[in-house]
Amino acid sequence: MTTRTATRSGGRSARRAQRTAPNFDMLPGLTRGIPVCEVMDATQVERIDNAAMDILENVGVQFRDPIALEDWKKAGAKVDGELVYLDRNMVRELISTIPAQFTYHARDPKKNLALGGKHAIFVPMTGAPFLRDLDDVRRNPTLDDLAMFHKLSHMMPALHSSAHHIVEPYDHPISQRHLRITYSSMKYSDKTFMGMTTSPRNAEDVMDMCDILFGEGFIDDHPVTTGNCNGNSPLVWDETMLGAMRAFCRRNQPVLCSPFVLGGANTPASVPATVAQLTAEALSALAYTQVIRKGCPAIWGHYLSTVSMKSGAPMAGTPEISLMNFMIGQMARFYDVPWRTSNTLGGAKTFDAQAGYESATTLSAVIHAGANYIWHSAGWNEAGMHCSVAKFIVDAEQCAMAYRMAEGPKWHDFDQALAAVPDVGPGGHYLGHPHTQDNFQTAFFMPELFDNNSIEQWVAEGEVEITERALKHAQKLLAEYEEPKLDEARNEALLDYIARREREIPAADELNQTY
Amino acid sequence: MTTRTATRSGGRSARRAQRTAPNFDMLPGLTRGIPVCEVMDATQVERIDNAAMDILENVGVQFRDPIALEDWKKAGAKVDGELVYLDRNMVRELISTIPAQFTYHARDPKKNLALGGKHAIFVPMTGAPFLRDLDDVRRNPTLDDLAMFHKLSHMMPALHSSAHHIVEPYDHPISQRHLRITYSSMKYSDKTFMGMTTSPRNAEDVMDMCDILFGEGFIDDHPVTTGNCNGNSPLVWDETMLGAMRAFCRRNQPVLCSPFVLGGANTPASVPATVAQLTAEALSALAYTQVIRKGCPAIWGHYLSTVSMKSGAPMAGTPEISLMNFMIGQMARFYDVPWRTSNTLGGAKTFDAQAGYESATTLSAVIHAGANYIWHSAGWNEAGMHCSVAKFIVDAEQCAMAYRMAEGPKWHDFDQALAAVPDVGPGGHYLGHPHTQDNFQTAFFMPELFDNNSIEQWVAEGEVEITERALKHAQKLLAEYEEPKLDEARNEALLDYIARREREIPAADELNQTY
Repeated sequence: MTTRTATRSGGRSARRAQRTAPNFDMLPGLTRGIPVCEVMDATQVERIDNAAMDILENVGVQFRDPIALEDWKKAGAKVDGELVYLDRNMVRELISTIPAQFTYHARDPKKNLALGGKHAIFVPMTGAPFLRDLDDVRRNPTLDDLAMFHKLSHMMPALHSSAHHIVEPYDHPISQRHLRITYSSMKYSDKTFMGMTTSPRNAEDVMDMCDILFGEGFIDDHPVTTGNCNGNSPLVWDETMLGAMRAFCRRNQPVLCSPFVLGGANTPASVPATVAQLTAEALSALAYTQVIRKGCPAIWGHYLSTVSMKSGAPMAGTPEISLMNFMIGQMARFYDVPWRTSNTLGGAKTFDAQAGYESATTLSAVIHAGANYIWHSAGWNEAGMHCSVAKFIVDAEQCAMAYRMAEGPKWHDFDQALAAVPDVGPGGHYLGHPHTQDNFQTAFFMPELFDNNSIEQWVAEGEVEITERALKHAQKLLAEYEEPKLDEARNEALLDYIARREREIPAADELNQTY
Repeated sequence: MTTRTATRSGGRSARRAQRTAPNFDMLPGLTRGIPVCEVMDATQVERIDNAAMDILENVGVQFRDPIALEDWKKAGAKVDGELVYLDRNMVRELISTIPAQFTYHARDPKKNLALGGKHAIFVPMTGAPFLRDLDDVRRNPTLDDLAMFHKLSHMMPALHSSAHHIVEPYDHPISQRHLRITYSSMKYSDKTFMGMTTSPRNAEDVMDMCDILFGEGFIDDHPVTTGNCNGNSPLVWDETMLGAMRAFCRRNQPVLCSPFVLGGANTPASVPATVAQLTAEALSALAYTQVIRKGCPAIWGHYLSTVSMKSGAPMAGTPEISLMNFMIGQMARFYDVPWRTSNTLGGAKTFDAQAGYESATTLSAVIHAGANYIWHSAGWNEAGMHCSVAKFIVDAEQCAMAYRMAEGPKWHDFDQALAAVPDVGPGGHYLGHPHTQDNFQTAFFMPELFDNNSIEQWVAEGEVEITERALKHAQKLLAEYEEPKLDEARNEALLDYIARREREIPAADELNQTY
């Protein structure tokens, strides 16, 4: 082959050194460069829309909450007991004021994030009553475990949020947990975070703490956190969720309006009919966010699985879950609202090949579906019953890989790269070519947690499987963690607030409860 | 909820019994119902086309084979030593006679398969020098092991082929192996199969055996098998591959024209430039198939990976591999030829979570890319160094799941399914509803090899991970295997042919060699 004189090798090796240093910088919010997967034609989209609107008009949605029922009456809906019947024109008008796109503001403004349209973010899993810890032992989590996950969220570049209760901290009274959880999210990371919606009053506490963190009144014009409000499919919203929704929406903070779908158990045994019901459910809550506060950002949510006939448990990575994600994405774009999905789900009991297949299948589906708020993006296994440290680390790297894929091919150096072809010529090799040396590391993603050595090397290094590799990596990360310090006055104000509220909230014997 | 009188329960339970019986019937060839993922706009497709044609015209392709060089001269190409320069108009004209779609004929005509356009098939991995066996022990394979994989290929519904040397049988002289391998493919399954291309003469033997199996002359009008011809990237085709290609094309049998791409090592460090070089390589071989026999079916192939900077080994499941698959699919459709890809690749040493992520990511990419001949669809791990029985079984089920996903949503009973929504109403459940009972099993895929039990159940059942579950399942399948008997006269003729050829071919001390 023809070699060029390596005049630039000084600069090149400096760039190489820089590139191989560990990089904990958050990736900017993802801006998609590849198309979305749309599995319905316009007629089919209309059929879903029409079916959903028929459900809203004729079957109705139960709002088990006197305030919401009163709100709906005032808004002009037909209310019969707890059943609310929503006219399609009213629904369309209400959801028309939901912003198609908005910006999340983080404590570090460099970590602000666009959401909606082509913009997507990855958010870790939450809500696990167990963890598999740094020794892969399955046990109940503590506040320290939660802090560990918040630190890891802070350090993994593709995670855009520290979420909230990634794991459920059992060492603190349940009635006061939301305060410590929120503080932990705020303290150990300067990325955006989620806000607890475990009760309307808890949600108010989160709003108050956001006021302290960002300065009084800031949040009224700036989304800074996200609440999740689960629906009870079929077609029910309860008082806790609706009250928390009001707390968030009144302060202009987006909630995920999330029907909780176990396909075939609480929906019809049909993919399109399930999507139709889920659409009706999501629309009813999205519409209500605009009754609460017109123009408030809101996100179409869902938890979505199909259930096992053997155990009744939710499954992950099934073809219908992928298809429903594609369809829900299409419907959300049809209504022009941002949407949330669940990522890297696994039903395996350990971090085995099953977990790998399930998680990667889910990840791929949500990327092709064009989801915006990509939740549960790290750690989820055992149908959400535990968060695995090992899986958390690997999932986060998988998200970085999916991010790269979703950006699409990079054409910036196409001509220079092509110029290497005649240089090298038939039968040559590229490894020594200057273009290769300058671009190899950025041209091709190199997963840190996958072993691509020969079996001989792998045996010589002790036959380390991925769980052990990931746990070692997590330990290394935690050793290198640097806390993004909170402003001292705000930190004290947060701690004062927590102390006061903990005096006010009865703790009782709730340590062992979870919800 | 309102329950309907279950008048149809007799028929329903009969249908249920039928559905839960093990089903080894092959799925028909896949007809896609979802769109392909296209990551390039028309201008970018033209840039790749133009770059590839420039390479063919100006850099040239090395054909290390005197007969091919002579053929190219006669066809009017500029030949300089071993370098062949192909004018773009000549290339376009030559490839225009490649059928965009054709039908593979199997021994059992019910298992014939359409290929090309929206039609795709799944073919197991081949070429592994090791297996992980029914006890998960890694060792050299035998003809019995190969027979086992042919039996499993026969029984897994989503596998459309028994391929050829899924594993390399070390207990038979290498010079004669192709005969035993081909016979094993033909004997243990009546699905389509692949033909060995390890030398031109070996390829002739395969053609002769096809003549015996299908009847003299049948194959000249009917594709029945597939040969693979690997290119040596960059831009080299060798004598062995070209000779085998001639043996297949002369008898009208399709070959896969497969550049063997290790991105960054034998291509430029750029995704689009790699695709441009690969396109030039594939086109040069596709064009040659039409020099050999105008109108002969041919398939754009590739083996495609990016290489690890640490070990130089091929990686699997990286974002660039997915992107390149999307782009190659677009180029193949631009030239209107069927194309092959590699599926469920893994670089893991065991069947761990790494293997799961890598395989599922690859599977998803090739499905969204719209590949037609989806090779290496079961068993591949350790960068192809071993075929794992456990992974073979799980991959095959994953292919069935991807197949279901690629068919797209099923709308046939949308209105009936929707009718269940008012029946059940807000807060109800669907499990007892007649539509659910009738449709649950067909509406939602239920993976056999994924465990979705609670942890308590899983512990009670002995904490069985997926490898052990899959190996038990493989044993069960093998116990239930029924050989699709060959016609007796043809069987004898095949055995006579093998005996004669084995007398003619020197065996020497080749047992321990592989290629």
